[in-house]
Amino acid sequence: MTKKNLLYAQSGGVTPVINATACGLIEEARLNKNQLGKVYAGKNGILGILNEELIDTSKESKSSIAALRHTPGGGFGSCRFKLKGIDESRAQYERLIEVFKAHNIGYFFYNGGGDSADTAYKVSQIGKKMGFPVQCIGVPKTIDNDLPFTDVCPGFGSVAKYVAVSIMEASLDIESMASSSTKVFVLEVMGRHAGWIAAAGGLAQQERGDPPHIILFPELPLDEEALLKKVDKAVKTHGYCSIVVSEGVRDKEGRFLADSGVRDAFGHAQLGGVAPVIASKISNALGYKNHWAVSDYLQRSARHIASKTDVDQAYAMGKAAVDLALEGKSGVMPIVVRTSDKPYRWKVGEADLAKVANKEKMMPRSFISKDGFGITAAARRYLEPLIHGEDYPPYGRDGLPKYIRLKNILVPKKLEPFDL
Amino acid sequence: MTKKNLLYAQSGGVTPVINATACGLIEEARLNKNQLGKVYAGKNGILGILNEELIDTSKESKSSIAALRHTPGGGFGSCRFKLKGIDESRAQYERLIEVFKAHNIGYFFYNGGGDSADTAYKVSQIGKKMGFPVQCIGVPKTIDNDLPFTDVCPGFGSVAKYVAVSIMEASLDIESMASSSTKVFVLEVMGRHAGWIAAAGGLAQQERGDPPHIILFPELPLDEEALLKKVDKAVKTHGYCSIVVSEGVRDKEGRFLADSGVRDAFGHAQLGGVAPVIASKISNALGYKNHWAVSDYLQRSARHIASKTDVDQAYAMGKAAVDLALEGKSGVMPIVVRTSDKPYRWKVGEADLAKVANKEKMMPRSFISKDGFGITAAARRYLEPLIHGEDYPPYGRDGLPKYIRLKNILVPKKLEPFDL
Repeated sequence: MTKKNLLYAQSGGVTPVINATACGLIEEARLNKNQLGKVYAGKNGILGILNEELIDTSKESKSSIAALRHTPGGGFGSCRFKLKGIDESRAQYERLIEVFKAHNIGYFFYNGGGDSADTAYKVSQIGKKMGFPVQCIGVPKTIDNDLPFTDVCPGFGSVAKYVAVSIMEASLDIESMASSSTKVFVLEVMGRHAGWIAAAGGLAQQERGDPPHIILFPELPLDEEALLKKVDKAVKTHGYCSIVVSEGVRDKEGRFLADSGVRDAFGHAQLGGVAPVIASKISNALGYKNHWAVSDYLQRSARHIASKTDVDQAYAMGKAAVDLALEGKSGVMPIVVRTSDKPYRWKVGEADLAKVANKEKMMPRSFISKDGFGITAAARRYLEPLIHGEDYPPYGRDGLPKYIRLKNILVPKKLEPFDL
Repeated sequence: MTKKNLLYAQSGGVTPVINATACGLIEEARLNKNQLGKVYAGKNGILGILNEELIDTSKESKSSIAALRHTPGGGFGSCRFKLKGIDESRAQYERLIEVFKAHNIGYFFYNGGGDSADTAYKVSQIGKKMGFPVQCIGVPKTIDNDLPFTDVCPGFGSVAKYVAVSIMEASLDIESMASSSTKVFVLEVMGRHAGWIAAAGGLAQQERGDPPHIILFPELPLDEEALLKKVDKAVKTHGYCSIVVSEGVRDKEGRFLADSGVRDAFGHAQLGGVAPVIASKISNALGYKNHWAVSDYLQRSARHIASKTDVDQAYAMGKAAVDLALEGKSGVMPIVVRTSDKPYRWKVGEADLAKVANKEKMMPRSFISKDGFGITAAARRYLEPLIHGEDYPPYGRDGLPKYIRLKNILVPKKLEPFDL
């Protein structure tokens, strides 16, 4: 029996550690060459598979693959492309199977969030129906931390560390300027539907009264009056007010504040940016000078301040995905299982893809303090271990991290082009 | 003869390493206890001196002072407060001398930019006139890198490293998303009058064609047509376009783009933010999806990614300031003198405060590429050594940097209150 090849694809928004997962997967496959063929990767995710643009990772050296572990971005390219239901997108599913057949793919690894888990599950179903069974394994990734079953999504811990460290540092800055200058600082972070990332800012509070003094969550509509009161109190008590705001904060009518009518000189709607909206509201109402930052892609690419726990887990998920394949499993996803809070301990488990698909894990209300502006002890207990440890990339003599760009050599095509 | 005390004050916007300078100064003074009295520090800079709020640094442990070396913000507080000319602000200058007399101050160290150098110089003049000579030493600091004589201003190198690493990381992110999603990323950095910080983003270009593809400098008025053409070309060549923009970019009429009429729903002018303005212009004209980030205070407090060269120089400036005082000097400022580019070598020199005061060092036009959108080899030769080396702060078991908050115990007041 000829060995089957593996096909790996990255999906959706990338993270500081998605390449660590790719690294774990490829290294584990290389260790099992007696049973496994080559590892191919979709160029720009599943789009590359549909277009038969498969990267041959066997053309990359051992050290290049090892360097993926500390390189942010998506080493093979990712995409925002969701396959719909099998009836609607039958031609696309069939094309995937056709590509699998043409390149002797026996294992499909889809590294993404809920949508990707759903796709991986459907691919496993249709493969069976079409008489070309492929072992389909979901591999968890998302900075939004919204996958069920797994204790945490790889990617989240590093973003959490970036946000906690950044607000801690910026708060020391504003604290030293506040007597005669800026009194309010607003940091905008990602998380359109769930406040996990914003909550991580709360980890910077090591003692009562420490900044950030206010966190604004997408889970709760903004109570502007209560916010202004709280800001004023913080300035009067501590001399300044440090705020973390989720991009997904909404007003009482359910509209995103980021879309609340900010327009440029030509009347074009301004894209995004809830931090300047909040900062302006505060300065207009209370007269305090503000500064604001929008970290955007910086937060989800900041591999230089990754959490070691997160890197280890991301790597472990890639490795475990291959191990599940070797055990003959399909329609499953490796997950992180927490076995102890203090000391923090975790192990690799597995979940059923059919159950993972399209189920969002929201942040429990019990993680948000009663007044709605902070995190609780329960949130801290959950979040803190996720930012443990540092895992610095190597730096060159030029003072820059040694991130890798792979050669990404494509496998020769065998099929006719496919019309997306 | 009784030993005279030292008085140190931090001035203006803080940096990731201004506390490293304070550390060098205090540690060097402690090593010379036979000749020097205590080190006092103005609470919130010169405002604290005028208000006779002097922090007694001798109340801090050796390890607390050592921790200043890796702590961002201003450990004693800073302020934005400029003393005017001696004739206009005579009462304030006299008050300073009065406070110096009351607390047996023989040495005044003012850690700041051009304005602070000017103030330190004037204080040395007026002290002499009033028959209470104080040795006044300017100590360089500014992320803007705009002081003359010194090869670099402590603080700049770390901000430069943050900007170069951040745009490198964010570019890897957008590169992997661009096939189906965001094609343009804009990072806004500080530097209202000079493009030193924006130029540092260019260090991320290790090879031709590497991001950032475009840098927008405050030195050149924005040529919108040329910008759009260049963006389009980058997207067509590389698949995406990564941009660093200085907050100080102006239009052809000399107006800051950040102030170009962006208003909130109530018609209030929106505070700052040139990145969203540039990003909107590009998306409106070319239709490319954009993301943008404004790093604001994050960039100048990011001690976690400080340049070791910068930390070493900041420390050395503090130490040298005390050494100059011990040599009996006044009206001077220690500076960094570059003795070699490759390998990079530097030593401590000194400059005359009278010549430093109020002279801005602009970025030479020869550092900006001919088309106005990048940096030259000369710029790279100057900038690169400044980001050499990493100097990580220690981290606690909670995954956060161990930054210090000092006790900041005040010296008992001896004078009547002063009306500012």
